[in-house]
Amino acid sequence: MNLWEIVQDEYNPEENKKYETIFTLANGYRGLRGFNEFSSYGWKGNFIAGIYDKSEAEVQEIVNNPDPLTIKFYIDGKRINLDNHKIRNFKRFLDMRKAILKTNLEVELTSGEILTINVERFVSKNDVHRWATKYEIVPKNFSGKLIIENTIDGSITNSVHDPYKEVKHYNVLKMKDLEPGIFLKSSTKEKAIDVVEATTLRCYRNNNNLLRNRSFKILGDKVKELYEIFLEKDEVYTIYKYGVTYTTRDNISDVEKVSEEALVEFAFEGYEKELKKHCEEWEKIWDDIDIEIKGDEKAQLGIRFNVFQLTSCANKNDTSVSIAAKGLHGEGYKGHIFWDTEIFMVPFFIYSQPETAKSLLLYRYNTLNGARENAILNGYKGAQFPWESTDNGLETTPKWGKDYLGNPVRIWTGDEEIHITADIPFAYWEYFRATNDENFMFDYGAEIFFETAKFWESRLEYNEQKDRYEINNVIGPDEFHEHVNNNAYTNYLARWNLKKAYEISNLLKQKDFIKYDRLCNNLGLSEKDFKNWKEISEKIFIPKFDDTELIEQFEGYFKLKDYIINEWDKNKMPLWPKGVEINKLDKTQLVKQADVIMLLLLLEDEFDSSTKKLNYDYYEKRTMHKSSLSPSMYSIMGLKVGDHHNAYEYFMKTVMTDLEDNQGNTEFGLHAASTGGSWQSIVYGFGGLSVDESGVLNLNPWIPEKWEKLSFKIYWKGAKITISIFQDKVILESTHDLMVKVFSQDCELTSYKLFVFNTSNII
Amino acid sequence: MNLWEIVQDEYNPEENKKYETIFTLANGYRGLRGFNEFSSYGWKGNFIAGIYDKSEAEVQEIVNNPDPLTIKFYIDGKRINLDNHKIRNFKRFLDMRKAILKTNLEVELTSGEILTINVERFVSKNDVHRWATKYEIVPKNFSGKLIIENTIDGSITNSVHDPYKEVKHYNVLKMKDLEPGIFLKSSTKEKAIDVVEATTLRCYRNNNNLLRNRSFKILGDKVKELYEIFLEKDEVYTIYKYGVTYTTRDNISDVEKVSEEALVEFAFEGYEKELKKHCEEWEKIWDDIDIEIKGDEKAQLGIRFNVFQLTSCANKNDTSVSIAAKGLHGEGYKGHIFWDTEIFMVPFFIYSQPETAKSLLLYRYNTLNGARENAILNGYKGAQFPWESTDNGLETTPKWGKDYLGNPVRIWTGDEEIHITADIPFAYWEYFRATNDENFMFDYGAEIFFETAKFWESRLEYNEQKDRYEINNVIGPDEFHEHVNNNAYTNYLARWNLKKAYEISNLLKQKDFIKYDRLCNNLGLSEKDFKNWKEISEKIFIPKFDDTELIEQFEGYFKLKDYIINEWDKNKMPLWPKGVEINKLDKTQLVKQADVIMLLLLLEDEFDSSTKKLNYDYYEKRTMHKSSLSPSMYSIMGLKVGDHHNAYEYFMKTVMTDLEDNQGNTEFGLHAASTGGSWQSIVYGFGGLSVDESGVLNLNPWIPEKWEKLSFKIYWKGAKITISIFQDKVILESTHDLMVKVFSQDCELTSYKLFVFNTSNII
Repeated sequence: MNLWEIVQDEYNPEENKKYETIFTLANGYRGLRGFNEFSSYGWKGNFIAGIYDKSEAEVQEIVNNPDPLTIKFYIDGKRINLDNHKIRNFKRFLDMRKAILKTNLEVELTSGEILTINVERFVSKNDVHRWATKYEIVPKNFSGKLIIENTIDGSITNSVHDPYKEVKHYNVLKMKDLEPGIFLKSSTKEKAIDVVEATTLRCYRNNNNLLRNRSFKILGDKVKELYEIFLEKDEVYTIYKYGVTYTTRDNISDVEKVSEEALVEFAFEGYEKELKKHCEEWEKIWDDIDIEIKGDEKAQLGIRFNVFQLTSCANKNDTSVSIAAKGLHGEGYKGHIFWDTEIFMVPFFIYSQPETAKSLLLYRYNTLNGARENAILNGYKGAQFPWESTDNGLETTPKWGKDYLGNPVRIWTGDEEIHITADIPFAYWEYFRATNDENFMFDYGAEIFFETAKFWESRLEYNEQKDRYEINNVIGPDEFHEHVNNNAYTNYLARWNLKKAYEISNLLKQKDFIKYDRLCNNLGLSEKDFKNWKEISEKIFIPKFDDTELIEQFEGYFKLKDYIINEWDKNKMPLWPKGVEINKLDKTQLVKQADVIMLLLLLEDEFDSSTKKLNYDYYEKRTMHKSSLSPSMYSIMGLKVGDHHNAYEYFMKTVMTDLEDNQGNTEFGLHAASTGGSWQSIVYGFGGLSVDESGVLNLNPWIPEKWEKLSFKIYWKGAKITISIFQDKVILESTHDLMVKVFSQDCELTSYKLFVFNTSNII
Repeated sequence: MNLWEIVQDEYNPEENKKYETIFTLANGYRGLRGFNEFSSYGWKGNFIAGIYDKSEAEVQEIVNNPDPLTIKFYIDGKRINLDNHKIRNFKRFLDMRKAILKTNLEVELTSGEILTINVERFVSKNDVHRWATKYEIVPKNFSGKLIIENTIDGSITNSVHDPYKEVKHYNVLKMKDLEPGIFLKSSTKEKAIDVVEATTLRCYRNNNNLLRNRSFKILGDKVKELYEIFLEKDEVYTIYKYGVTYTTRDNISDVEKVSEEALVEFAFEGYEKELKKHCEEWEKIWDDIDIEIKGDEKAQLGIRFNVFQLTSCANKNDTSVSIAAKGLHGEGYKGHIFWDTEIFMVPFFIYSQPETAKSLLLYRYNTLNGARENAILNGYKGAQFPWESTDNGLETTPKWGKDYLGNPVRIWTGDEEIHITADIPFAYWEYFRATNDENFMFDYGAEIFFETAKFWESRLEYNEQKDRYEINNVIGPDEFHEHVNNNAYTNYLARWNLKKAYEISNLLKQKDFIKYDRLCNNLGLSEKDFKNWKEISEKIFIPKFDDTELIEQFEGYFKLKDYIINEWDKNKMPLWPKGVEINKLDKTQLVKQADVIMLLLLLEDEFDSSTKKLNYDYYEKRTMHKSSLSPSMYSIMGLKVGDHHNAYEYFMKTVMTDLEDNQGNTEFGLHAASTGGSWQSIVYGFGGLSVDESGVLNLNPWIPEKWEKLSFKIYWKGAKITISIFQDKVILESTHDLMVKVFSQDCELTSYKLFVFNTSNII
């Protein structure tokens, strides 16, 4: 078993859509779904980060752009495809190390011709505008004429799965003949963002061009070029398809000219040269991100898939985009950006690729004006980050959905799931804690903290009777319960947000008064405000059960009807307890996903071990995991409280979310939060990584019995540390001298010197 | 076995295209291929007679217009189709008596829902602009929501089977919401003929509209409307889809307004009312065209299919269109009109629907100016009819094709297959002979005869040495041999054309001098010309074998290498004799299709029985039947010369051409000439119908042993005669008193009185 390859070895057209997601090639700039060009089944997807459009849709959504991948091969008028002919051999696989999608086919046409076809596709990480495909075709038992139809398909729409929602977000502005090559320029309907796709084919042998009889044509919204190749039996024909993509988002003056020139240059440089550079980029990336698990092949392959696809989603060179809930892999959640990014994905980047983390965080800074407008529209101060975000920070959660009968149903998350506004500063804090990047905190983070603190200040409701601040009418992470008062997670994070804003104001004032003064003036703030934030934060109400440390998810939660989960399906996912009415979940204590447990993880040094255990035991029995955001958090907390067996199960469920499609909707895109959760399970969970109050890195690792070794690298305060965990020891190596704690014992690391910590001493 | 139904009882997506041709519903104004709306496989086809376009194609071709049939049904997001779900029951059939296409399905979705769906579609013969479909849907084991997506698809192109030739012949000008209903207006690229398709849905129960939650959308070149229906288990839901089609060819001032109003009116009148009128029209038609064969079910069903589809192609109300080689059933031969119409199809209409025959003949009169231009372009006088004709009589045969390697190959038929110019007057003569319609002959036929005679006069080459006229460098009906001299068929028909023109000039002068005088002045003709035609006609050279009556197909044919057919395939079609080189057929005596035999049939009173037998015996052994025009002619001649067994085989081959797809290309459209050939085999062959020199109708019937009865009706000189042939007798009934000959014996028919002729006396 090659532990770098995700393999599909049986073809079933019904599974095409799922594999399109799994086999998506993305480079942060764009994602191309793993469309199988030898089938007509599937949902083509060409997503370019940051290109959103509303037009006839209910809200702005990521645009599914014209498809440049389409290519058809014909033998004697018969299209070579997998759905009408006999498949003698089939393998498709993602080589994650090189970020290449490969297809190996042997097809026998109904008329008897047998061909082997090997395909290689990559979306360059070296030059994000480039992508290419290589086709190696061998006629096994005949000589004959191959017709190649190269197409850019400008008929692509969003939401083909739902006839009511299907929409075309662009107009085709221009199609032209590049002689050779084809060109299609589209323009989004709302904002007129132009996108140019251009492709061209090459097929040489001994300097002879084997592409004959070229023809160019435009058919409706499709532009095509045709060629013939005269195949000789048993000869190998290598056809290269080169593609480039540019948009008016790229800040270039003449998109058309640039595209045309770039295509010529790419074809001139050649496939192999670009592929080499692409692989070198990925080699560097893997040195940062790879996680090694010895003794558990499924976990090994799975974790690689998760960090690979998560990395693929990010573009460190574009601070105006972030990672959507479904990555660049599908249209699910309309390509919107949720708390998923900051809470589930950003930690991976902070510790593995801090420069990329910075770019992701800057997306929120760059959309602050939208967040300010949200606050104004809702009657609050400062900045209110949107529950669903696109390109401008404005709230884009749909206000209305439809029920089965077509009646309008109000969607409340955009109004009430306000914890996002604390989640974002939390990620800024996490980045700062891991990097000590004061410039970043002072230039960007401080403003985020102050503006969100302003929001919370205005959002808090003072209860005079009880002399406390409350936050009423919210939705916490658990979306089964709407319009609740004093959700513990929300209140705690709001409190943290206000307190931290106060601390940062002090730090900034002390370290860089000029910046402090300018920011205060810009935002109309003064010492008085900062102190006020601290004071009110201390009076924010946190509901608990009587005098215990059992946290009440929200006020009144414990009075709801109690159901305990006691049955699980074959995937070990909870089944609804008997008697539960699905449309009255808000009347029960069942929760959709980690909520209090999230809180205990994020602010872990505010809670002692017994509190964690007490709450884990309570909520674990009541959490239905109806979100892919949930199992990873239970995995980490399970490890912290010693529920090792369940923790491993939760981890595997997280890691296999897309590979086993255990949420049943992988076809709509990557479960990107879950990929981040997988990393967190490894590093925070099995690695036991945490940061104590004094800012020291702690490791309290535990690995399953069958794991011989777990190894990963992290960046910490500028050093890169390799952490290898064995059953009997932990080995550390750092690029810098550094003090860390392993099982609470101080370990002084010396740069590039292995530090071996023998765990048998401890346990 | 219902002998009115063409049944497909097994579903195989590979056969969809073939059945689309067989199940085409046409009304002369338009043809809608029998597209199966529950599959994505096939070639949609919406052809409107007379709408041709060149634009990017090599020559003008029939336009495949936007498709109004498309409709999709979804249960819980899953499209109901035959390709992805389990088919529990399948039957599709053409009810020819009513001209309705029916589909009966029971489908089980992969998610378990079972539905029965019965569909009925008709293209009205009452109002040619109307068509409609009725869907009866029953959920067998569930209640649930059905989504209906009604579409007009403006992305349809011609030649989807050939990427090099694929072309879109129209622009989509306007799509709009008819609230309810959808509308698409397209316009052909070359001549800007506007076509409007408009459709709307209805579904009522007890006056309640069951169509809920309407939504309208435009996606690229597709316009759609969506509805939901809430299905209850075991209830029957009847959904009507109404459609109308108007074009700027229809001579109406405002196509848009007319279409919209017509759609509202149609939906108001209702499906059943229009269906009833449609069936009444077809009842009348069947009274004219039906042929009864007792004792041979396959022949019975087959002959009905042939006359049904042939009738469907013609529109007696439009004299500017004719019937293409592939009917209104497919894009084969680009929708062009060949000699197939006049020589193979028109006889059927002359004897079964003389008014329609007149319209078809007028198409040639109305395109005379094009034919005149062809003559001028080629350096001749008069009118030269095009080998391939579209809407204006100009030659539209492509001049160039491409060989396998893409090299240009000259196509000569448009230059050399000039016998078409005599074939057309021949059909006028046949009509005149059967109807005595002098007005028609004088108003239109005479001009055709004179203008074609002028052409032949200028085309003949005088050989001084031999004192004879020759026609060199032609292609006869047999297209294996190009650039031949003095093809017997061509020379004979040219001679006949000149002679007949002379006779008609005399008749016209004698019967209507005013018309004669006007026509002479119009065409610049006088007595002298007419006499000259007669004189030169007598000197036209006809090649024969030495002093025998064996006609030489063309000069030098007998010197070619001789091969005799002595092997046949399992369909009893000739195999290439051993040693024949396929690319050197012109060096052999093998012929593609009936050539000399055609001549002997058309001008049968110019040849005696022994000549026919001699030539039949010779050419039958050398004819490869590589055209669907050939077997029927050999069937008729076989019966005339007593080769009964082969004649029956040739007849069955002709009748089953499309139903058994024995030419292997039914998917490209109806073999319309073969449908006419089928009728000729019955009436001229088994019925033994001929007209003797004195213009008397003769019957010399013979029917196969297993046939109990063969019965058909013909129009003759204004009378309608029912002819029933039994093994031992012939029974005749006429609407008028009339003299005919049966087996050369005079039979005086009295109107509406059965005349029984006992054949046992004779044989």
